[in-house]
Amino acid sequence: MAAHSTASPPPRRAGLLPKNRLEAFADGVLAIVITLLVLELKVPPVEETSELWHALTGEWREYAGYLISFVFVGGVWIAHSGATNLMERGDPVLYRLNLLVLFFVSLLPFLTSLMTTHLGEEGEHVAVALYGLNLFVASAMLNAFIRYAGHHPDLAADDLADDELREIERRRRGLVVGLGLSAVVALLLPDLAVGLYLLVALTFIVAPLFLARRSRRSWDGNG
Amino acid sequence: MAAHSTASPPPRRAGLLPKNRLEAFADGVLAIVITLLVLELKVPPVEETSELWHALTGEWREYAGYLISFVFVGGVWIAHSGATNLMERGDPVLYRLNLLVLFFVSLLPFLTSLMTTHLGEEGEHVAVALYGLNLFVASAMLNAFIRYAGHHPDLAADDLADDELREIERRRRGLVVGLGLSAVVALLLPDLAVGLYLLVALTFIVAPLFLARRSRRSWDGNG
Amino acid sequence: MAAHSTASPPPRRAGLLPKNRLEAFADGVLAIVITLLVLELKVPPVEETSELWHALTGEWREYAGYLISFVFVGGVWIAHSGATNLMERGDPVLYRLNLLVLFFVSLLPFLTSLMTTHLGEEGEHVAVALYGLNLFVASAMLNAFIRYAGHHPDLAADDLADDELREIERRRRGLVVGLGLSAVVALLLPDLAVGLYLLVALTFIVAPLFLARRSRRSWDGNG
Amino acid sequence: MAAHSTASPPPRRAGLLPKNRLEAFADGVLAIVITLLVLELKVPPVEETSELWHALTGEWREYAGYLISFVFVGGVWIAHSGATNLMERGDPVLYRLNLLVLFFVSLLPFLTSLMTTHLGEEGEHVAVALYGLNLFVASAMLNAFIRYAGHHPDLAADDLADDELREIERRRRGLVVGLGLSAVVALLLPDLAVGLYLLVALTFIVAPLFLARRSRRSWDGNG
Repeated sequence: MAAHSTASPPPRRAGLLPKNRLEAFADGVLAIVITLLVLELKVPPVEETSELWHALTGEWREYAGYLISFVFVGGVWIAHSGATNLMERGDPVLYRLNLLVLFFVSLLPFLTSLMTTHLGEEGEHVAVALYGLNLFVASAMLNAFIRYAGHHPDLAADDLADDELREIERRRRGLVVGLGLSAVVALLLPDLAVGLYLLVALTFIVAPLFLARRSRRSWDGNG
Repeated sequence: MAAHSTASPPPRRAGLLPKNRLEAFADGVLAIVITLLVLELKVPPVEETSELWHALTGEWREYAGYLISFVFVGGVWIAHSGATNLMERGDPVLYRLNLLVLFFVSLLPFLTSLMTTHLGEEGEHVAVALYGLNLFVASAMLNAFIRYAGHHPDLAADDLADDELREIERRRRGLVVGLGLSAVVALLLPDLAVGLYLLVALTFIVAPLFLARRSRRSWDGNG
Repeated sequence: MAAHSTASPPPRRAGLLPKNRLEAFADGVLAIVITLLVLELKVPPVEETSELWHALTGEWREYAGYLISFVFVGGVWIAHSGATNLMERGDPVLYRLNLLVLFFVSLLPFLTSLMTTHLGEEGEHVAVALYGLNLFVASAMLNAFIRYAGHHPDLAADDLADDELREIERRRRGLVVGLGLSAVVALLLPDLAVGLYLLVALTFIVAPLFLARRSRRSWDGNG
Repeated sequence: MAAHSTASPPPRRAGLLPKNRLEAFADGVLAIVITLLVLELKVPPVEETSELWHALTGEWREYAGYLISFVFVGGVWIAHSGATNLMERGDPVLYRLNLLVLFFVSLLPFLTSLMTTHLGEEGEHVAVALYGLNLFVASAMLNAFIRYAGHHPDLAADDLADDELREIERRRRGLVVGLGLSAVVALLLPDLAVGLYLLVALTFIVAPLFLARRSRRSWDGNG
C-alpha cells in the first residue's frame, strides 16, 4: 500500500494542485487569444473591390499589429511550456500567478486593436505606450510565475529543476527590462517602438526556417 | 487478468465516465469564457483620438466588469481543479452537474456586458442584480458538483478524498451565501454591490504577488 | 524488448492514430461552440433601459434557442466521452467521422441565430426545419462515429468494448429517429417543434439536480 | 536512481520540450479556427424573411468558403496528429515551426471572409489568389514541421519513427505542389480554383461515410 502510494501519488499534500490543469488552461487561453487576434482584421467592403490590393496594403498597420501580438503570445507559450516542463505540480499561489499572466495576455486583442486603430493618429502615443506597457507587465508576471516555482522545491520536477527554473528566470530578466524600456520609448517615439517590435517579431518568425534548414543539413551530413 | 485490471483499469463500471474529459471540457469552456470577455471591451473610435486617454478612462465601467468576471472565472477554475484533483472518475450525473456549472459561467460575457452597459442608467438595478444572481447560481452549482462527488466514494481518488471533498464543499458555503446576499444588495444598492465585487476581485488579483514575494523570502532565508 | 513494447505501445500500426487527439480536438470544438452561442445574445441598447426587464423578457426566443443548443452540445459531449472511453485508439476514417460530427455541431451557432431571428416571422418554417435537420444529421453522424468504432475491434479498448459500443449505438437510434421526426414536425408546425426541443432541454438541465439530491440522500442513509 | 530516470524521464535534455503542449496548443488553435469560421456566416435580416430560402441560397459562396476552410483545417489536424504520434518530444525549433503552421492556419477565417466577400466582384482574382497562397504556405509549413522532426532522431518516438516521418513528408509534397499550382490558377481563373477546392473538400467530407459503410460490411461479413 505504501509502495503503491509512492509510485504515482496524486498531488494531494495540503493545497497542492495538479500540473495538467495549469498547462491545459494556459494552452486554452493562449490558443484562444492568438486566434482571436485575427478577428480584428477587417475585410475591405465590396465598394473598394476594384482596388482590393490597394485597400489591403493600406491596412498594413493591422497586419503589423497582428504579427507582433501573435509572436508575443507564441513566445509566452514556448516559455510557459519550458517552465512547466520543469515542474511536478502547482499550488494555489502558482495557479493565481498563472491567472495573472493570462490576464495580461488576454488583454492583447483589445490593446492590439487600440494600437493599430490609432497608429498615425493623434492618440498614437497613448495607444502604443499602453500596448508596450502590457507586453512589459505580462512578461514580468511570467517571470514571477517562473521565479515562484523556482523557489519552491516541492513544485519542481526534481532536485535540479528548481535551479534550472531560477536560471531561466534570471536569463529572462533582460527581456523584461527591454520590454519595459520599449514601453517608455513608445510613449516618446511610438513609431520607433512599433518598428522595433516588428523587427523582433519578424526575426522570431523567420529564424526557425533557417534554423530548421541548417539543422537538417547537419543531420543529412552526419547520417 | 485480475492483476492487469487493477493495475490501470479504464473507468468502465456501468455508467462511469473518465475524469480527463471532465477536466478538458471545463478547461476549454473556462478558457474561452475568460478570453471572450475581452471582446466586450470596445476601442474608442478615431474621432476621439485627441482625447484618447480621456475616452479610455470614461470606460472604467467596462474595465471593472471585465476584471470582476475574469477573477470569478479564474476562481471557478482553481476550485474546479482542486475538486477534480480529488476525484478518480465521473458519472453521467457528475457530467451533467459540470455542464450546469459551465452553463451559468458561459452566461457571464453576456451578463457582464449587460451590467456595464447599464451601469449609471435607469435599468442598473435589474442589470446588476441579474449579474449577481448569476454569480450566486454558478457558485451554488459548483458546490453541488463538489458535494455530489463527495458523497460518491466510487468517484473519489481514494479513501480520504471523499471526506476532503465534503469538507471543501462545506467551507465554500459561506462564499455561496455571500454571493447570494450580494445579489440582494445589488437589487437595492447596485453601486455598492459593484464596489464590493471590485474590491474582492482586486484583492484576489493583487494578493498572489505579495504571497509569492513573502513565500520566496522565506525560501531564500531557509535555503 | 518485446515485453516493453507490449506494455504501453504507441498506437503505430499502419494508419492507426492516437485517441487523445480525438478527445482533445472534440473537447475543444464542443467547448468553443457551447461558449460561442452566448455571443448571439444581444444586450438591449441603453435607450430601452427604463424598461430593461421588459426588453429582456422580449428576447425569450434567443434565450430558448440558447438553452436548446447548449443542452444539445452538452449531450453530444457526454455521449462522445462515453464512446471514446471504450476506445483505445483511432484511425483515419474515425478521425474523419469525428470531423463530420463536429462540422454539423459547429453550424449550431449560425442555425440557432437563424432560428431565433426568424421565430414568429414568415420564414419561421424554413428556419426551424433547418435547425431541426441539423440536430438530426449531427446526431446521425455521432451514431456513425460510434458504430464504426464498434465494428473495428482494433480500435476498441478491450474484448467487451466493441460490443458495448454497438449496444450504445443501437440504443441511440431512437433518439436519432426522434430528431428526424422533429425536423419534419418543424417544417409543418415550427412552434410545436421548438416547444418540444425546449421541454427536452429543460428536463435534461433540471434532472441532474434531482438525481444528485436523491443520490446524496441514499448515500447519507447508507454511510 | 538510474533505473528510475530511464523508466519515465521527463524530457529534460538541454532545450527539449514536452510533446503534450505541442499537441494541446495545436488542438486548441485548430479547434478555435475551425469554429470561428462559422462566425462569418451571416443570418439574413428579418426583412428578407418572406424569401428566407432564397436569401439563404444566395449566400452559397459563404457556405462554399466555409466548407473548404473547414475541410482544410480538419486535414491539417489529421496530418498533425499522425505526425506528432511518431514523435516523443519537441525542441524550440519544432515549437516555432508549429507556431508558423498555426500562424497561417489562423489567417484562414480572415482570408475565407475576404474570398467569399469578393467572389463575383472585381477584386476576385486577388482575393482567391491570396486565399490559395495561404493554403499553399500553411501546408508547406506543415511539411517543414514534419521534415524537421524526421531529421532529428532525438525527437522521434523510436528508431523507425524518423524514417516514417520523412516518408510522410515526402508523400505530402505532391499535395503542397498541387496547392501551389492552385494558387497560380486562382490568380488567372479564380472560379475554376474555387471549384477545384470545393470538389476536393466535398470528396473529403463525403468519402468517410462510404469508407465507414464498406468497412463495417466487411467486419459484419468476417465476424
